[in-house]
Amino acid sequence: MSMLKAVLFDLDDTLFSTTKFAKKARRAAVQAMIETGLDVPEQDVMRELDEVIAEFSSNYDHHFDKLLQRMRPSALQHLNSAMIVAAGVVAYHNTKIRELAPYDDVYPLLEALRAAGVRTGIITHGWTVKQAEKIVRLGLLPYLDPKAIFISDQIGISKPNPKLYLTVLNDLGLDASEVMYVGDNLVNDIAPPKSLGMLTTWARRGAKQTPEETGVQPLHTVDDFVEFAGLLRGVYGVDVKL
Amino acid sequence: MSMLKAVLFDLDDTLFSTTKFAKKARRAAVQAMIETGLDVPEQDVMRELDEVIAEFSSNYDHHFDKLLQRMRPSALQHLNSAMIVAAGVVAYHNTKIRELAPYDDVYPLLEALRAAGVRTGIITHGWTVKQAEKIVRLGLLPYLDPKAIFISDQIGISKPNPKLYLTVLNDLGLDASEVMYVGDNLVNDIAPPKSLGMLTTWARRGAKQTPEETGVQPLHTVDDFVEFAGLLRGVYGVDVKL
Repeated sequence: MSMLKAVLFDLDDTLFSTTKFAKKARRAAVQAMIETGLDVPEQDVMRELDEVIAEFSSNYDHHFDKLLQRMRPSALQHLNSAMIVAAGVVAYHNTKIRELAPYDDVYPLLEALRAAGVRTGIITHGWTVKQAEKIVRLGLLPYLDPKAIFISDQIGISKPNPKLYLTVLNDLGLDASEVMYVGDNLVNDIAPPKSLGMLTTWARRGAKQTPEETGVQPLHTVDDFVEFAGLLRGVYGVDVKL
Repeated sequence: MSMLKAVLFDLDDTLFSTTKFAKKARRAAVQAMIETGLDVPEQDVMRELDEVIAEFSSNYDHHFDKLLQRMRPSALQHLNSAMIVAAGVVAYHNTKIRELAPYDDVYPLLEALRAAGVRTGIITHGWTVKQAEKIVRLGLLPYLDPKAIFISDQIGISKPNPKLYLTVLNDLGLDASEVMYVGDNLVNDIAPPKSLGMLTTWARRGAKQTPEETGVQPLHTVDDFVEFAGLLRGVYGVDVKL
């Protein structure tokens, strides 16, 4: 019997490609705004939008309003700007609904972990409504232990504070050594649980930084969840078939 | 040549059935919340949701949170309530995207009016983002004069204040006698433009009150837009074929 009682996952860029998805949705939004009458080349609007997101953070609620404020008024003189913003918002959400999907190997892994009697859950950082909606839209809910979904905004503790992970261990009634955490971000997802004695796996396909750049060494590193399943079988004796 | 230069419309329950759509979307949301683990009979949740909407207004942003707060804690003890809220929100929005459509005779009417050289637009009461998104999702944008879309929240004047309609006349550079306003709500859509000398048509298929109840008499009354087109042809000499 394996000592591994639970595998918990980061969400963004670990279970799906946030970056790839956001790029598609933003492009669809910009194209819709141009079709609705924003008379500016697509490339210029995309560049301005990237700047807005960098300046106001990706969780800001009014990117498209800010974008239009920054565009030259001559591009908007014949139009109600609210309609251009709405066209962008609608295209963004339509893309989100159509495109949002986990990496191909996510459902099989979660299914196999459940079959093997290992609890599965999520510890994610972000706004409650946004993260909860992503979990639902990604279709992850049926694969997760409903008591093991943790959103930092709900708990009031943010990554990379190790207290977030400690709260989760206490809530689940598990020892640090019995829980594996899997994430793409070395600073937020690997260093804090490692400092508590939790097992850590760096899922590097969505990662933006390396161990060399961050000085953080994960216990394990995998390129995908087929490799991760092999690790669970070989090192931890968990009977997961993918 | 007709003296009628523009026909402006109310949005909710005039160009589409808000009531019918909201009912469908709310039912889908409640069913999704129950599927996600809210262990309460559908009928009870629907009744509670109707109360929440009545108490907090339909434009409130957190109906489903309030709904769960009001439900007995025992129904939620094994679940993260944010996931139930998210399941409801996702089902609501999916229904919105799938179901939102204007009455069947709306596109033909707007198309015929444009062909006849009559300007078409909207004066709607509500929050800018919500109303603008509805106009986009209903597919109305290509049929409207982009300079003739007015949202009360953007103008800072709310129905039934006649100043809202006066502002629109000034913006369009038209005389009251040259503009017809079409709406379902006698108090908000008929009385104020009538007081300014505008032409008024009560589109009663979505109406909740009668002239007898409100003491407001519209200039014209129609059951649908085929009848309205006949009125425009017969009384105003506008060449609209439906």
